[in-house]
Amino acid sequence: MLGMFCVRAGSGLMGFRAAPRVRSLHSFPGITVAQIDEEVAKLLELKAQIGGDDGKHQFVLKTAKGTRDYNPKQMAIRERVFSTIIGCFKRHGAETIDTPVFELKETLTGKYGEESKLIYDLKDQGGELLSLRYDLTVPFARYLAMNKITNIKRYHIAKVYRRDNPAMTRGRYREFYQCDFDIAGQYDAMIPDAECLKIVYEILSGLDLGDFRIKVNDRRILDGMFAVCGVPDDKFRTICSTVDKLDKMTWEDVRKEMVNEKGLSEEAADQIGGYVSLQGGMDLAERLLQDQKMSRSKQACAGLSDIKLLFTYLQLFQVTDKVVFDLSLARGLDYYTGIIYEAVLTQAGVALVSTEAQNGAPAEESVSVGSVAGGGRYDGLVGMFDPKGRKVPCVGVSIGIERIFSIMEQKAEASAEKVRTTEVQVMVASAQKNLLEERLQLVTELWNAGIKAEVMYKKNPKLLSQLQHCEESGIPLVAILGEQELKDGVVKLRVVASREEVDVSRAALIEEIRRRTSEA
Amino acid sequence: MLGMFCVRAGSGLMGFRAAPRVRSLHSFPGITVAQIDEEVAKLLELKAQIGGDDGKHQFVLKTAKGTRDYNPKQMAIRERVFSTIIGCFKRHGAETIDTPVFELKETLTGKYGEESKLIYDLKDQGGELLSLRYDLTVPFARYLAMNKITNIKRYHIAKVYRRDNPAMTRGRYREFYQCDFDIAGQYDAMIPDAECLKIVYEILSGLDLGDFRIKVNDRRILDGMFAVCGVPDDKFRTICSTVDKLDKMTWEDVRKEMVNEKGLSEEAADQIGGYVSLQGGMDLAERLLQDQKMSRSKQACAGLSDIKLLFTYLQLFQVTDKVVFDLSLARGLDYYTGIIYEAVLTQAGVALVSTEAQNGAPAEESVSVGSVAGGGRYDGLVGMFDPKGRKVPCVGVSIGIERIFSIMEQKAEASAEKVRTTEVQVMVASAQKNLLEERLQLVTELWNAGIKAEVMYKKNPKLLSQLQHCEESGIPLVAILGEQELKDGVVKLRVVASREEVDVSRAALIEEIRRRTSEA
Repeated sequence: MLGMFCVRAGSGLMGFRAAPRVRSLHSFPGITVAQIDEEVAKLLELKAQIGGDDGKHQFVLKTAKGTRDYNPKQMAIRERVFSTIIGCFKRHGAETIDTPVFELKETLTGKYGEESKLIYDLKDQGGELLSLRYDLTVPFARYLAMNKITNIKRYHIAKVYRRDNPAMTRGRYREFYQCDFDIAGQYDAMIPDAECLKIVYEILSGLDLGDFRIKVNDRRILDGMFAVCGVPDDKFRTICSTVDKLDKMTWEDVRKEMVNEKGLSEEAADQIGGYVSLQGGMDLAERLLQDQKMSRSKQACAGLSDIKLLFTYLQLFQVTDKVVFDLSLARGLDYYTGIIYEAVLTQAGVALVSTEAQNGAPAEESVSVGSVAGGGRYDGLVGMFDPKGRKVPCVGVSIGIERIFSIMEQKAEASAEKVRTTEVQVMVASAQKNLLEERLQLVTELWNAGIKAEVMYKKNPKLLSQLQHCEESGIPLVAILGEQELKDGVVKLRVVASREEVDVSRAALIEEIRRRTSEA
Repeated sequence: MLGMFCVRAGSGLMGFRAAPRVRSLHSFPGITVAQIDEEVAKLLELKAQIGGDDGKHQFVLKTAKGTRDYNPKQMAIRERVFSTIIGCFKRHGAETIDTPVFELKETLTGKYGEESKLIYDLKDQGGELLSLRYDLTVPFARYLAMNKITNIKRYHIAKVYRRDNPAMTRGRYREFYQCDFDIAGQYDAMIPDAECLKIVYEILSGLDLGDFRIKVNDRRILDGMFAVCGVPDDKFRTICSTVDKLDKMTWEDVRKEMVNEKGLSEEAADQIGGYVSLQGGMDLAERLLQDQKMSRSKQACAGLSDIKLLFTYLQLFQVTDKVVFDLSLARGLDYYTGIIYEAVLTQAGVALVSTEAQNGAPAEESVSVGSVAGGGRYDGLVGMFDPKGRKVPCVGVSIGIERIFSIMEQKAEASAEKVRTTEVQVMVASAQKNLLEERLQLVTELWNAGIKAEVMYKKNPKLLSQLQHCEESGIPLVAILGEQELKDGVVKLRVVASREEVDVSRAALIEEIRRRTSEA
């Protein structure tokens, strides 16, 4: 997809150099197909090594694996999505920062657990050891510690890098955007946390992606639950990561993994099963606070009280219709310390799904296209960077922008509406020859007045090709110059869609163009 | 500068582990100072190896060499600059594209000549060999060839990477933005070239950077001039790169380098000297077309005719007051084939200069802060990527955005005007306790109406601290809630600057906020 393809100069299977060896094979009796295949493979490898085609340049014309170019149409969609998202972040008073694309390797070390193997390292060319950023959260924490910042509300939209197996049709790349909003600072419980959820709600509504649900849980509730169900302390993390698979696996399979692979007792597994099927709102938090077993864990009670408080604020923010307290939510990252959340699109038939179904994935998957936003509270990460270990409590959310791009691109593909890639209001054209100077003069007048205008870079372009360019790029107006118009001091203004033409005096032209394109 | 600093946990010169060894040195008679120094050096090296400080985490808290974070203030300036530049590109009908931050190593190979040693390579972690992009022009050419695009007018703003010696106070980094506008396509001579200069003119005027000059020359005029002056063919490039230094060196020094270092005859050097001192406009091009010697070169004549044509178009574009045909302009990059240009700020006392003067640079340098834009025509680059060598003529310009950022940042530093880092219109506050719910309800109303609003994340914040936050972040309005206001169905709207307060009915609040902040 997306215009990625591979060209090799001279694509014949056997080049000149290999021919004599092939002939010698033919003259040798009794050779097997397997032997031929083997020899062919060797020859092809040899060909690759010598570079082939006798000095003609030969190279692969492609982008690196797992990356893509954005063409103008994709950029137009990307900018529309960014503008909705940034609009929301700004409405909530966020500042923005930027950090370098690479960090000292040691800045990233020990922050991502097992995933560290997916970090891109730079070659050691003398000097510092560097790695490409893996997310925006660790650089943010490094930035806060380095500048001793204890309070900030910031967003950061930038590309991050993971040497993962790309699944580009589903919007999974090795180079991809992250789009993060975080609130750092010591505040009263659950107020910034609730605002993060309000932001997810506003963005997903604003992007018009169909229905969605935001699942909420708390790391402390999960840990407390594991404790009261009899999970040994050293198994919390691994059991947690199995619970995390409940959005893709049935409970039976999750239970099997817990018992058979991770050695949990059947009794403990069943007790967990009783909890992780629970979903609700403030009422569920209240019920669990009364639950004989759960209430034995102080940690769980602290989490449950915070969930209650959270829902109070979510009601005031008018977003409870989409938020559900879900005990099966268990996000992977180590650094979360409190509330965690994840948003999923729930509408069946979202574009992304069809691609997946074609690849033979089970039909059940079409219920969810996976997470389009996620985040949580991480109160310990900044302290890992501070020389004195000073903590800065943080809560944040990351919008899964690449999946959203993929959905939007496929929507645009499917719809009849044409995506404009420029904002040109008017094309300065002429029907007659030898009017280049007059066209350049007029387009200068328009540019100097702030009008978005184009002129063809030809001395004598055909009127038809000028009009065709307008049709193709969605330019709504054409200002046509001719001998007669120049004599009369007017310009013929043509509306591309209706083909209506009207003479406008040169003095009134700019106002007329503004008036006619003020909604565009 | 820019908040970059280095922290090490435990900075004592000698840690605990080294102590016994130091004592043994003290008991040894007759030791020399040099020997002590040597031993100390060994011990320090040992300390560095073992990581020191008994397991306490110890790391350097900094960004990679030659890179920087952008804080919210710098981002606000950056966004203002981008908005002017992108506005201009869009006014001229440009689309935008994006390419990955790394390319296959072979895509960059052989495109940058000597500078190739400055390319950042990624570590070979299995799979493809990758390098960070060095500019945006080569990826653009790769993009055109790969997608068989023969016509496009596009801009691309993105970071590029060079392992150069950073001079960050002068806006030179290892990670820096490039901001390119290019027109690809087979068009009539000099029309797109002239538009590129129009764009440079509009952007530098729009950014209000003080007076500037755009120097223009043509690669063919340079080559023709070298030929008629008797420079041997194989010395064109190296003599060209010496001529390129005329903006930093006197003619005498340039002449010396040509003759003494590069082995050019004194006669040839003097003939070159006669030409490279020439500056003018269309008149100069006409004079040189009549010049007995110059007119012997077909190449030079082609270049000179194009310069004449260029100036015709520049007159129609109304930009000739800043453009000068300057025979000493000789841009470095190999891939230029026709017209080349470079814009410099000419106003003395531009902020950047002072830093340079402090470092002991000669005072003459303060006349120019160096190039803030440059570009030219490169008709052969795309063909290097096309398997069949098909050419796509291109002309483009790159805006030196980092230097512009540095100037803008220093201007902002020097001026009294405060740079706002958010766009918040109103702060929802209360003077009394226990009104958190009411504040959250009101801020929700405002957010839902599209108003940019903030609320403090505290149950009972002090009015003073709420007002202080407004002062600090330049928030113009405060909506104050109290028991009385709630009873009366009003909100007290306070203008932060004037301290004026007025009661506004709840129903009219949103309109009132919009009215009062419509110019902000």
